[in-house]
Amino acid sequence: MYRIGIDLGGTNIAAGIVGHDYRIVRKASVPTLAARPAEEIVRDMGELCHRLTREEGLKPADIVSVGIAAPGSVDPASGVITYSCNLPFRQFAVAGTLKRFFPVERVYLENDANAAALGEAMGGAARGTRLSVMITLGTGVGGGVILNGKVYSGFNYAGAELGHVVIEYDGAPCSCGRKGCWEAYSSATALVRMTKEKMREVPDSLMWEMSGDLDKVTAKTAFDASRKGDLAGIEVVDRYIRYLACGVTNMINIFQPEVLSIGGGICHEGDYLLKPLCAIVDRDQYTRDRAVKTKVCIASLGNDAGIVGAAALEE
Amino acid sequence: MYRIGIDLGGTNIAAGIVGHDYRIVRKASVPTLAARPAEEIVRDMGELCHRLTREEGLKPADIVSVGIAAPGSVDPASGVITYSCNLPFRQFAVAGTLKRFFPVERVYLENDANAAALGEAMGGAARGTRLSVMITLGTGVGGGVILNGKVYSGFNYAGAELGHVVIEYDGAPCSCGRKGCWEAYSSATALVRMTKEKMREVPDSLMWEMSGDLDKVTAKTAFDASRKGDLAGIEVVDRYIRYLACGVTNMINIFQPEVLSIGGGICHEGDYLLKPLCAIVDRDQYTRDRAVKTKVCIASLGNDAGIVGAAALEE
Repeated sequence: MYRIGIDLGGTNIAAGIVGHDYRIVRKASVPTLAARPAEEIVRDMGELCHRLTREEGLKPADIVSVGIAAPGSVDPASGVITYSCNLPFRQFAVAGTLKRFFPVERVYLENDANAAALGEAMGGAARGTRLSVMITLGTGVGGGVILNGKVYSGFNYAGAELGHVVIEYDGAPCSCGRKGCWEAYSSATALVRMTKEKMREVPDSLMWEMSGDLDKVTAKTAFDASRKGDLAGIEVVDRYIRYLACGVTNMINIFQPEVLSIGGGICHEGDYLLKPLCAIVDRDQYTRDRAVKTKVCIASLGNDAGIVGAAALEE
Repeated sequence: MYRIGIDLGGTNIAAGIVGHDYRIVRKASVPTLAARPAEEIVRDMGELCHRLTREEGLKPADIVSVGIAAPGSVDPASGVITYSCNLPFRQFAVAGTLKRFFPVERVYLENDANAAALGEAMGGAARGTRLSVMITLGTGVGGGVILNGKVYSGFNYAGAELGHVVIEYDGAPCSCGRKGCWEAYSSATALVRMTKEKMREVPDSLMWEMSGDLDKVTAKTAFDASRKGDLAGIEVVDRYIRYLACGVTNMINIFQPEVLSIGGGICHEGDYLLKPLCAIVDRDQYTRDRAVKTKVCIASLGNDAGIVGAAALEE
C-alpha cells in the first residue's frame, strides 16, 4: 500500500512515496516559487506526484491517498488553507484543486507542525507510542500532539499552538501579538536575537570572530563558541537551554506524553543540547518522583517528518 | 440507573446519588477528620453510601458504580491514592477498601480537579461538548481536560497539571518547587498574597478598613474594595485578572476546547471577574480572527462538580 506525502514549504515542495512501515521509498522536490499564483504551485505538486509514481513503476490508482503538510492556518475538514504567511494561499481549496492535477480520491491536509509530529509518532522517535508531543525549533516554535495515531488540534483545528504559550509574562514581543511566548525564547530566531544581544555586551567574545559580523550570526554561532569555551557563548547557550527546559517542562506537566521529541535545525547540536536540557526537565517536572516519566529526545526523521506525517493522514 | 459520586476533601466527605441526566437526587456529607487512619475514613465513605441508598429507597444492588474524587496523586487504573497532602493516604488502595464497606462491583478513582472537569462536562457548563477544559481557582489552580467524555491525564495519569505551567519565568515560588507557575499568580492563595503586598504599600487603602487586619485578608478583600472604588483594590484585581487571562489564553492556544469553564470560590465574583477576563482573552488568543472560538464561562455546578464527575467515571 502506497501513500504520498507532500511537505509544502516556502522554499521547496518536497514529496515522497511512503510504503510499508511508514518508510519513504522515493522522494523528490521542486522549488515552490512562492511569488506565483497558488494554482500553479498546486499544479507542480500534482506533477511531482505523477513523476514519483511513474519513477517508482506505479500507477496513480496504486496511490491510496495524498497528504499535504502546509504552513499556516489550515482547515483539515474542508481541505482549505485559510491563511499562510509565506505562500499565496488565502481561503484556498488545496485538496480539491490537487485532485484535478493528480487523480486520487483521498487528499488530506494538515498544518506542517502537526504533520511532522504525526510523522515522528508513526515512523520516527515516538514510533509505537499512543501519546506523543513534538516540538519543532525553527523560525518559530511549532508543536504537535498525537493521540492514538491522530493529530490533536482542538474543536476548531487551531489547537496545539504550543509555541504561543506565555512563559515570561510581559516579556519579549512575539509574532502573534502577545509578549513573552515560548516561541520568543526558544525559536532559532530567538537564539539569534539572544546571541546578538550578548555580542553587543561583550565586544571581545569569540562569537565576533566566528560570525564575522552581527548580520552573519546564526543559531549555530553561540553553540560553536560555547564548545570552544567562550564565556559569552556559554552564557547564551545556558540561557537558551533554561528557557527551552521551562517550556518543555510545561508541556510535560500538561500532556504527560510517552515521548516528547524535539526537531528543527538546533537539534543538530545533539547531546550538547539534550543533556543539560533533560537535567533541568527531570528536576523541575511535577512528576519528578514518578517511576514512569516522559522520554525527552531528539526527533529522528529530520526533514522527512513532514512527508511521512502527511502520508500518514487519514479520515 | 443510579451511581454514587464521593468527593473526598480535607474537611468533608461529600457524597451524592446521581440519577438520570447527571442530576444529583440526594446528597449528604460527614466530616473527614483527616487525622485518623485512612481505613476509618473509607469506612465512613462506605457508611455514607449505605445511608444515601437507604434514604433514597434503594438497595446497594441498584447502584451501578461508585466514583471517588480525591485530592493529590492518584492511580485510576489500580484505584490507589499514591499521595495526598492533607489526608493520611499513602499508596492506599481506596477503591478496593471501599468495596469491603459497600458492596458494589465497580469503584472508580480520579483526581479531584479532573473529576470536577468531568462533572462540568457531563452535567454542567460544558454539557453537550466533546472537548472542554475546567480550571479550578482554589488553594491552588487545578485543571481538567475532558475529551469525548473521558478525563485526559496523559500516559501515566499525571497530566493536566494546568496550574503548574510557568507563566512568569523565574517568578514567584510555587508549591511544586518551580518558580512562576500559573498557580502562584491565579490561585486564591496568590490573590491573598498580592492583596497583602499592596496593602503594605498603600497604608490608607480601604482594604485595611474592610479586612480589619492583614491576617484577616481573604480572596474577597481586593474585589470588595475594588467595587467600592478603592484604587489599591482596583490595582490588585486588575493585576490578578491579567495573570488569569494570560493562563486562560495559554490553555486556549494549547487545547482549543469548545468550553473553558472556571470554578472555585473566586467565581462568585461573576461578571465582575469574567467580563474583563474575556476582553483580554479575546484580544490575545492566537485564533482571534476565527469565527469559531472557545466559550469562556463560569462553571455551573459549584461544589457539586466533584460528586457529579466522580459518579460519571467509567472504565
